[in-house]
Amino acid sequence: MFRHTDHLQFDVAPEKPDPVYAHKLQELIGGTFGEMTVTMQYLMQGWNCRLKGKYKDLIMDVATEEIGHVEMIATMIARLLEGAPATDSTKNAAGDPVVAAVMGGMDPQQAIVAGGGAMLANSNGVPWSGGYIVASGNMLADFRSNVAIESHGRLQTARLYHMTDDPGVKDMLKFNLARDTYHQNLWLAAIEELKADGLEDTIVPNDLMDVEHAEHATSLWHLSDGADADKGRWAYGVAADGRHENGFLADPVPLGSAQAGPPPDPKLYATYDGAMGEPRTPALGTEKGMLGKIKDAVDPDKN
Amino acid sequence: MFRHTDHLQFDVAPEKPDPVYAHKLQELIGGTFGEMTVTMQYLMQGWNCRLKGKYKDLIMDVATEEIGHVEMIATMIARLLEGAPATDSTKNAAGDPVVAAVMGGMDPQQAIVAGGGAMLANSNGVPWSGGYIVASGNMLADFRSNVAIESHGRLQTARLYHMTDDPGVKDMLKFNLARDTYHQNLWLAAIEELKADGLEDTIVPNDLMDVEHAEHATSLWHLSDGADADKGRWAYGVAADGRHENGFLADPVPLGSAQAGPPPDPKLYATYDGAMGEPRTPALGTEKGMLGKIKDAVDPDKN
Amino acid sequence: MFRHTDHLQFDVAPEKPDPVYAHKLQELIGGTFGEMTVTMQYLMQGWNCRLKGKYKDLIMDVATEEIGHVEMIATMIARLLEGAPATDSTKNAAGDPVVAAVMGGMDPQQAIVAGGGAMLANSNGVPWSGGYIVASGNMLADFRSNVAIESHGRLQTARLYHMTDDPGVKDMLKFNLARDTYHQNLWLAAIEELKADGLEDTIVPNDLMDVEHAEHATSLWHLSDGADADKGRWAYGVAADGRHENGFLADPVPLGSAQAGPPPDPKLYATYDGAMGEPRTPALGTEKGMLGKIKDAVDPDKN
Amino acid sequence: MFRHTDHLQFDVAPEKPDPVYAHKLQELIGGTFGEMTVTMQYLMQGWNCRLKGKYKDLIMDVATEEIGHVEMIATMIARLLEGAPATDSTKNAAGDPVVAAVMGGMDPQQAIVAGGGAMLANSNGVPWSGGYIVASGNMLADFRSNVAIESHGRLQTARLYHMTDDPGVKDMLKFNLARDTYHQNLWLAAIEELKADGLEDTIVPNDLMDVEHAEHATSLWHLSDGADADKGRWAYGVAADGRHENGFLADPVPLGSAQAGPPPDPKLYATYDGAMGEPRTPALGTEKGMLGKIKDAVDPDKN
Amino acid sequence: MFRHTDHLQFDVAPEKPDPVYAHKLQELIGGTFGEMTVTMQYLMQGWNCRLKGKYKDLIMDVATEEIGHVEMIATMIARLLEGAPATDSTKNAAGDPVVAAVMGGMDPQQAIVAGGGAMLANSNGVPWSGGYIVASGNMLADFRSNVAIESHGRLQTARLYHMTDDPGVKDMLKFNLARDTYHQNLWLAAIEELKADGLEDTIVPNDLMDVEHAEHATSLWHLSDGADADKGRWAYGVAADGRHENGFLADPVPLGSAQAGPPPDPKLYATYDGAMGEPRTPALGTEKGMLGKIKDAVDPDKN
Amino acid sequence: MFRHTDHLQFDVAPEKPDPVYAHKLQELIGGTFGEMTVTMQYLMQGWNCRLKGKYKDLIMDVATEEIGHVEMIATMIARLLEGAPATDSTKNAAGDPVVAAVMGGMDPQQAIVAGGGAMLANSNGVPWSGGYIVASGNMLADFRSNVAIESHGRLQTARLYHMTDDPGVKDMLKFNLARDTYHQNLWLAAIEELKADGLEDTIVPNDLMDVEHAEHATSLWHLSDGADADKGRWAYGVAADGRHENGFLADPVPLGSAQAGPPPDPKLYATYDGAMGEPRTPALGTEKGMLGKIKDAVDPDKN
Repeated sequence: MFRHTDHLQFDVAPEKPDPVYAHKLQELIGGTFGEMTVTMQYLMQGWNCRLKGKYKDLIMDVATEEIGHVEMIATMIARLLEGAPATDSTKNAAGDPVVAAVMGGMDPQQAIVAGGGAMLANSNGVPWSGGYIVASGNMLADFRSNVAIESHGRLQTARLYHMTDDPGVKDMLKFNLARDTYHQNLWLAAIEELKADGLEDTIVPNDLMDVEHAEHATSLWHLSDGADADKGRWAYGVAADGRHENGFLADPVPLGSAQAGPPPDPKLYATYDGAMGEPRTPALGTEKGMLGKIKDAVDPDKN
Repeated sequence: MFRHTDHLQFDVAPEKPDPVYAHKLQELIGGTFGEMTVTMQYLMQGWNCRLKGKYKDLIMDVATEEIGHVEMIATMIARLLEGAPATDSTKNAAGDPVVAAVMGGMDPQQAIVAGGGAMLANSNGVPWSGGYIVASGNMLADFRSNVAIESHGRLQTARLYHMTDDPGVKDMLKFNLARDTYHQNLWLAAIEELKADGLEDTIVPNDLMDVEHAEHATSLWHLSDGADADKGRWAYGVAADGRHENGFLADPVPLGSAQAGPPPDPKLYATYDGAMGEPRTPALGTEKGMLGKIKDAVDPDKN
Repeated sequence: MFRHTDHLQFDVAPEKPDPVYAHKLQELIGGTFGEMTVTMQYLMQGWNCRLKGKYKDLIMDVATEEIGHVEMIATMIARLLEGAPATDSTKNAAGDPVVAAVMGGMDPQQAIVAGGGAMLANSNGVPWSGGYIVASGNMLADFRSNVAIESHGRLQTARLYHMTDDPGVKDMLKFNLARDTYHQNLWLAAIEELKADGLEDTIVPNDLMDVEHAEHATSLWHLSDGADADKGRWAYGVAADGRHENGFLADPVPLGSAQAGPPPDPKLYATYDGAMGEPRTPALGTEKGMLGKIKDAVDPDKN
Repeated sequence: MFRHTDHLQFDVAPEKPDPVYAHKLQELIGGTFGEMTVTMQYLMQGWNCRLKGKYKDLIMDVATEEIGHVEMIATMIARLLEGAPATDSTKNAAGDPVVAAVMGGMDPQQAIVAGGGAMLANSNGVPWSGGYIVASGNMLADFRSNVAIESHGRLQTARLYHMTDDPGVKDMLKFNLARDTYHQNLWLAAIEELKADGLEDTIVPNDLMDVEHAEHATSLWHLSDGADADKGRWAYGVAADGRHENGFLADPVPLGSAQAGPPPDPKLYATYDGAMGEPRTPALGTEKGMLGKIKDAVDPDKN
Repeated sequence: MFRHTDHLQFDVAPEKPDPVYAHKLQELIGGTFGEMTVTMQYLMQGWNCRLKGKYKDLIMDVATEEIGHVEMIATMIARLLEGAPATDSTKNAAGDPVVAAVMGGMDPQQAIVAGGGAMLANSNGVPWSGGYIVASGNMLADFRSNVAIESHGRLQTARLYHMTDDPGVKDMLKFNLARDTYHQNLWLAAIEELKADGLEDTIVPNDLMDVEHAEHATSLWHLSDGADADKGRWAYGVAADGRHENGFLADPVPLGSAQAGPPPDPKLYATYDGAMGEPRTPALGTEKGMLGKIKDAVDPDKN
Repeated sequence: MFRHTDHLQFDVAPEKPDPVYAHKLQELIGGTFGEMTVTMQYLMQGWNCRLKGKYKDLIMDVATEEIGHVEMIATMIARLLEGAPATDSTKNAAGDPVVAAVMGGMDPQQAIVAGGGAMLANSNGVPWSGGYIVASGNMLADFRSNVAIESHGRLQTARLYHMTDDPGVKDMLKFNLARDTYHQNLWLAAIEELKADGLEDTIVPNDLMDVEHAEHATSLWHLSDGADADKGRWAYGVAADGRHENGFLADPVPLGSAQAGPPPDPKLYATYDGAMGEPRTPALGTEKGMLGKIKDAVDPDKN
């Protein structure tokens, strides 16, 4: 269960409106790596966590912080839209290139749909999707995704930092940059802790090493013609997992037979000349499982 | 430019059809972490790479391999659908629970739309989206995403490995598991190489450290009531970047003022009682930039 | 079955082209509350209606009108695009800020994809989705959605009314505003009629009142720290359904136990330390339903 | 800013696993009217609210409660999946129709992607979308949407109530039903309060009544051939807004001219025979606004 | 403007319910090639048509028919769902494999969301999208798309015809098959008519033939290793346009230089070693267009 | 399996940056008819092809070429973005209308997300979708889609050709135009070859002609009021399939009974007055199939 205070985690006070920038800031609320994604990614990871104690507590602390970041960005966008010339007519705009230019860079939905507020969408207006988040139950896989998402989050924040001169906006972004720095360090520390605690190792998942085709677990297939692909550590030396030797397959040949579909079911009307023979009879319905045996016993005439 | 050989990278030979499993395998072709995603993620990263030499060559080698993996999974799905009872009538199915059960687990579009082939969609039928891929130009951020995606890829492959007994399917998955093992090692090595070459450091992007609010770059805000959030290395000791000290803020208070939107533009009809005053006049259209100065000179009467 | 006349329901005659406004008008054809949504929402409600007579007839009348509104907006957009500088080169545009500004605010797909016509998308270019519509079979729930959608429809139309000075465009919008006024009144009347006819009451669905946990059906949980949440009628007095008393829970405490997932299936590789014990054996496959009994009788050796 | 306690708002304790039901419950977390939608709809309405005091406080109280409902449903789904036969092989399933049947009704992504947890998607696996939410700034329009969404929410919960016999699941749903009852009453009360406070009236937005074409604001256009469309109160008597008289247009004729696009720009290659004449010259780039005047003065030779 | 009659274009009378088939039929209402697509594709083509007379009249006739097909399929789905065991509990289902099997193949949203009616989605539950339709203004391109969509429509209908034994369903499908046959003939005739009328020719658009690099307009690049790609008429003889000679490039070499991005803007933090030099200064802002000249004159000190 | 060379198929050398045009070019990489679509459409068709020899070899040759076109457009976009004023602050932009205008027409995600590279999205920023492609197994249906997509591809390329004056961009587009010309001729030839080889005929699929309701396979239903719908060859003479006579139904009447849903299941709470009687009992679970018979024998007391 959650509780809320009306006070923002950090100050959100732009010096003056900037509707073009309000459009760009949408990326930090509803983009693939925006605050909605980290919020829901961490919440779902926390609720899906099967360990009790420090890891679950960590995830829920960070997740709860991130809801407050959605709040901060949504508030910043609304404040950047104050006094935006959304309702000036296009005719006036055409006579005033500055206004026209600004209107060209605005998000029409922030005015028409949200009435001067933020949308739950990215900087191109595409709605945020639940498909962005990652919560697999495997914490090494998930924490690696978390490091990545915080890296992209800080990268996009830094790019946006250079796109404004407003000291109030920059002040908030300096806070966001700092949190993204810590969160990268945080998830990197958590990955090491998982290994130190013996819960996970280098390869995800930590299983089936003896089952996989080991001879194919070690080398880069050289399938493009760049000359330097074998110059990096991925092509020689001990692998990160301490178990394999990295290698390089300079002249790879395909190991499989020719690609082809099976003969098609005629009732599906794939174009076909019969050259591969008749398709198999539907297998699963006719094989003798329990039901097949019973059917034979009870109703032998039914085909 | 690309070239293609009809031979598959590895053998794709299921022992017999299994339409329910063909449905599940869609996750590996069109899911968030499926072969389409690694293919297009690596291709776009390679084309967007601003370095010449080993890194670009590496990315293009792996990217080109992955197109062949889409080919393998698409072929496997078609072969698993051979003889599937897609065109049996529902009436028969209802009389034969085994068939009915199988049909309940089938992907209707593999029959109706693809005529017995793979869709470019996940195991719930949601089409693959270009929004899944990550290619930011920053190679540390991107390689971290690559480690994560290969981790999830091997995780999902391992889960699917347990969902079939078909030795032919298992044989192909053993190859895929091995490649995913190597690719995790590969991107981990590439991350170290980036640092060794002095191109990137621990925090993405490697900049604005002196600008961000440093006092907020070090501690976990304790916003959930779990008792153990301070027990991990993220809460004490030197951070992964070697620059900060990890910390813990046990009793955080919000630093910002109360959340509130600005006074609304009356032409947008947000419900309002006037308590926060009139909204600002649209700012950008009236301030004196170059155009404003010119307008005043040429056409002083125009407002 | 439908019939069509080439004459528009109302005149659609802009005085002159305005491609920036044509972009914004997309919201009224393909936005969440645009004409496509009301058209398909009412059609699906009408076809899903299980009553014969006035309600079904009403819905089909309005639904059929709305197809004609899609026609009107699509026509308006095409006419606003006449002579739009879509094919002027960017180079010329850069030398003429007015043109450049206009081009910045245009919808590129109206030119590149539709050849100077409307798209079936909103003002940010996101395609209309069948997921927008509501047709549940429960007419009280659906008519409430209809009141809401007509309210947002008129709201967005009013906002757009202020964004143009073209008398021809304004004339069409005055018609749309009037229809949206009537349609709000219409659905409000239909809701009252449903109650007067004894088909529905205040709460949807009109059932399970005696089953639900009645003690939780009456009060606002005070989970944010605003001071005035108990000042409105939702916090005291008889509720709208005439059955409950509204209330206020000033200091709520959670009623449930700690959030936690169950012990995970090891074959799914959720990170786990075993602290919660083994997961249950898959339950549904082993319990003795009809099939289990039969299996035991016919094939006792099979596990 | 938010805080979280690990205790759930209400108990979530299914008696035993039921993976088919876990699939259906996805509708209540990630469907159009699921808990994610109410959560984000209310949060965005609260942050976009331009009033201080009771309305904003109300919205934030309810919004904060709803995050906890996402938590409850996500937990329920994970617990319903405990011991689900996700990793049994299809081969075994085909021999055991009960298992096969259950697997046919499972959500493959709950196992393959989420590792035995909830997805942020609906019961057909479509990811939740930020496009579902409504936060326009106009509180009457928004509260009407809120009444509708709580009506659909209770309706879907009631339908799902009949699809399970598990007493633990039913117990949680009885809580959800009760909250949905209160929330319908709550928003109905809030709508009355808005009117009592003089902030809004019956028609949204409360403006442009004198501008719209009043003669079209009163009658149902009879465009389908049902005989009873004029039998309801929408067709006679005083309208809900107390301002108009409802009416019925039994034999409507179109008021507009024939539908037609303008003559097309030849560079866009719409098929055309020239019958409607040449398209207008692009208007906005050549008309004499400020820039045009300046260009003429400074660079008269440039066309 | 449209009118509606309550009578269906053709009879829709299934002999008995079949919820699994109702699920599959969703493809014909909300799939890529379903009735929603043809309806909106033809409506938008008709409204975007720039010719008056037979072509526009043809398109509007067919478009209007197709709305009635959406009506037919939606009605069929509702009738196939009558008496579907949607509200039986899962527990009972698990004890009755036939019911369980059927439930596994049902669309959960048809019950939970639509209350026993059709969704506006495909057979995997993905909502219909406005992005499916094609209305470019160029009628040859559009009519080719129409031939294709009617071909896929009849193909899917034929596949579905084999998936049922219900004589009532088959009767309706026989009507649909017939209409799809005629509509293929119709659009093939319309394509010939466009050419006969001199409005379009073989290649779309009928322009820029003298501008394109003619030497690349004639031959298949042999980039895969199949041996027979030159055996078809695409590789020799006069082309369909009567203008080119088809050919075959047996051993193609790339004509372009090496793929590479430009040097990156340092403020965007693409990983870079400086090897390709500094990026260009932003060009468009500094070049001397009209504004540049004016700025130099009025405000020479501003950079 | 695939191989890659770093050399582009054709030169990609813009004379100078043009970020507005880079935005528009997104349509050719990630739009419905962009290079991603042809690439994946042809790959999936090739892998799903059930013929060996010339058709499969043809498809794989063209498919492999198209991956290289994605590469070309992605490279062109990155080069057009060199030096784009992405990181200039909005404040400066507002003072310089040329810069502001350009920024208004830029794709914010190309800077913020891709760091100066291409997105896998269309010109409105909507991500590419796997739902765009067509690969049905029926090669006549698919090749007709291929003719259509190449027609739209060349149409959009021609439109974009007029939107730039950059000789380097135009040079690449001249190559693309030529390939699209050949590819239209190619698929038209392949369609004729399919017929010449006796694999397919005019109507898709080439079956069920004797089953469909032949009397409805021949005439245009005149449902709109245009006067000339019977003036084209679709309304008279022998049809394209050589089998039917085209016709015209001047005054069509509906053939079906009145539209209505069945009586609803009370547990789904559709509004209902009982006028159509009780809904049928769920049929499939109770009818006597094999399981029913067994249940009666083994457990006669169970209902």
